[in-house]
Amino acid sequence: MTKRTLIKHLAALDDGAVAVSGWVDTVRDQKKVQFVVLRDESGAVQLVHPRSEEADEVATAISALAQGSFVTVTGELKHDERVKLGGIEVKIETLDVVGAADPETPIAADSGVDKRMDWRFLDLRRPEANLIFRIQTTLEHAWRSYWVENDFIELHTPKLMASASESKAELFEVEYFDGKAYLAQSPQFFKQMAQPAGFGKIFEVGPAFRADPSFTSRHATEFTSVDAEISWIDSHEDVMRMHEELLVAGFRAVKDKHGAEIEAAFGVEVTVPSTPFPRIPLAEAKRIVAERGYEVPRHDDDMDPEGERQIAAYVKEAFDHEFVFLTDYASSIRPFYHMRHADDAGLTNSYDLIFNGVEISTGAQREHRVDVLIENAKSKGLDPEELDFYLDFFRYGAPSHGGFGMGLSRVLMLLLHLSNIRETTYLFRGPTRLLP
Amino acid sequence: MTKRTLIKHLAALDDGAVAVSGWVDTVRDQKKVQFVVLRDESGAVQLVHPRSEEADEVATAISALAQGSFVTVTGELKHDERVKLGGIEVKIETLDVVGAADPETPIAADSGVDKRMDWRFLDLRRPEANLIFRIQTTLEHAWRSYWVENDFIELHTPKLMASASESKAELFEVEYFDGKAYLAQSPQFFKQMAQPAGFGKIFEVGPAFRADPSFTSRHATEFTSVDAEISWIDSHEDVMRMHEELLVAGFRAVKDKHGAEIEAAFGVEVTVPSTPFPRIPLAEAKRIVAERGYEVPRHDDDMDPEGERQIAAYVKEAFDHEFVFLTDYASSIRPFYHMRHADDAGLTNSYDLIFNGVEISTGAQREHRVDVLIENAKSKGLDPEELDFYLDFFRYGAPSHGGFGMGLSRVLMLLLHLSNIRETTYLFRGPTRLLP
Repeated sequence: MTKRTLIKHLAALDDGAVAVSGWVDTVRDQKKVQFVVLRDESGAVQLVHPRSEEADEVATAISALAQGSFVTVTGELKHDERVKLGGIEVKIETLDVVGAADPETPIAADSGVDKRMDWRFLDLRRPEANLIFRIQTTLEHAWRSYWVENDFIELHTPKLMASASESKAELFEVEYFDGKAYLAQSPQFFKQMAQPAGFGKIFEVGPAFRADPSFTSRHATEFTSVDAEISWIDSHEDVMRMHEELLVAGFRAVKDKHGAEIEAAFGVEVTVPSTPFPRIPLAEAKRIVAERGYEVPRHDDDMDPEGERQIAAYVKEAFDHEFVFLTDYASSIRPFYHMRHADDAGLTNSYDLIFNGVEISTGAQREHRVDVLIENAKSKGLDPEELDFYLDFFRYGAPSHGGFGMGLSRVLMLLLHLSNIRETTYLFRGPTRLLP
Repeated sequence: MTKRTLIKHLAALDDGAVAVSGWVDTVRDQKKVQFVVLRDESGAVQLVHPRSEEADEVATAISALAQGSFVTVTGELKHDERVKLGGIEVKIETLDVVGAADPETPIAADSGVDKRMDWRFLDLRRPEANLIFRIQTTLEHAWRSYWVENDFIELHTPKLMASASESKAELFEVEYFDGKAYLAQSPQFFKQMAQPAGFGKIFEVGPAFRADPSFTSRHATEFTSVDAEISWIDSHEDVMRMHEELLVAGFRAVKDKHGAEIEAAFGVEVTVPSTPFPRIPLAEAKRIVAERGYEVPRHDDDMDPEGERQIAAYVKEAFDHEFVFLTDYASSIRPFYHMRHADDAGLTNSYDLIFNGVEISTGAQREHRVDVLIENAKSKGLDPEELDFYLDFFRYGAPSHGGFGMGLSRVLMLLLHLSNIRETTYLFRGPTRLLP
């Protein structure tokens, strides 16, 4: 392997021979001296080549260099305070064009988001885009480390199913040999299955699919779902406690590793949230936003996006907190598998988690008593026979349990104060977007 | 949350009050005393209840207990060497049946694998099944930790695609709004996309889908693929070096955490492999197995499963090693994107990794020069126009790069000397298996 030095490590080296590899950011091809700014995944550095009087292969190569080409350069590193880009430069000795670029770059700095998505592999060369996925890596690894240290088992549940896992409205159908299969809309049923299986505590990070025809800034037809499920809970309160510990572990790791970079690139100071996060029953939250002058324009008992922004603003003012758990949603707007209150079947042991004004997660205690589960399904107009394979999970013994599902790209979007999930998804998928 | 103690932690406690939760393994309902063996995700413990003369609610509850029911028990822990099961027992004070089981258990200890898959949530209660997924958790976390420590970026590439990523023969088709989409057969194209995007080094653990109609012990229509891809390599040798370091890190973590349990449950001593792993060019491997008396019955240049077993046996004898890289496969049996030798276009910079006689992974240096890539595609009878979105990745500059894909369940199967991938997959998917 080329013994290249990552550009971010150059400044710590003494003057002397180095090799660097990356892509050409800019070329200044002057009469007496040529400058190239080279970029890699870690940073950018200025390369310099004084032209000589004689035949000069390096000069010819630099003159022909298209922006975006990938090159390996050997040369002499020199510290020089006058160099604006980090106080170092590399005097080129050899330049090897490993992958030449077409000189016509299809996107520019001011291209719109849709055009940038067409050329996502070029768009991702922006240092801020690269940073987003390094943050994602740190965040996920901190979450998984929290779970592994707490004896959770990691699952990979199947994405091919014989029937719907959530509403039938947003289901993708797959040609499956001589029959049909469906893409999992969530790992809900299969992560619950781990509870009667005696796994105790589980987590999964994997894709989920929704045939949602909407074109908003926060919906996708395929997204990465972060899921956990735990046995032997008394209520959703136990789930929320694990959920907030998890977020604290993740945000602390992100702040430690990327806090300064995030401030520089996005102007955002990462806050490690304090625990417990504020908890507000939904009915009370609706009273609070009404007092602030906003009446949620819905006929059911649910919140709406503006209501979520309003309650988040209230929580920020009242508790200086970026997160809030809205709890005890009405049974009428929750799935049949959310456990209902023992003393009020109209309410569920459930919550939504709001972060910086947007919902990032739904959690709940699940109904584990098969007779109650069947009644709840019927009350939702569902046919228990169609759910038989799922109901079986609870017929041979099951512990009390609960968990949550959380959208990875949404968390990143809101953490970095970005306005579109497309920026925090490697390759976005929507109703009209399957390429690249 | 119930302040339950995991059963494996009981032995370290002093005699006194405890709460345990789990499922009923067996009940011995005797005249003077009742015994229950309770199991949780960490182990099993004996519960005891001496019947009293008077009305005895606990005795009645125990007599009615169906095997498999989930219960929470409070009582007095007592160390007693005479108790065969770990030298402890818990004298029951209260017993709460949280999830009662149907007394007719549909599978037995001697049920066949297909029957067990029908009732996978019960099958997974076996301690060895639980152990498999704790090993999986440890293995994956060690791999990801290796990557994160080495500055890899974690990707989640889309599983919905506009076209095939590998051969069109084994492709699942999805109804996608008014058109069609296809399920990713591998993250190949999209993990390569990270290279011109300047990500440097990436990894992904996620599902892959193959419409493979075969019914073998090591194929599935959906499997968890472990993938990595790195920039700036000189050849596939750089990929193999990373690959073997990764496996060493994973196996060391598994041996440290589960070595004794694996020996007890599966009779297998985990070996942390030495590096470098043996490397044998495929042509030489075929000569070696021929010398051992086995002629590979194929008309192309490939190995077959028996040949892989034979070369593994040779490597075990000659080098006392469980792994072998077979290298330099013929271009005729490799995809168009595998780089060909500079001095012999008939061979590729590629490898298969064999573990305990079975292929677990394919790796290669990729062709990053778009003109060569187009020629290679044509020579395979592919239409470059259909590959245009992929070829674009290399038109605006790309580094040299390579990587591998590896089947998670196969690694686990071979590590534990099991004979069927169904045992090491949470929920197996095959041509006739979509349930549960």
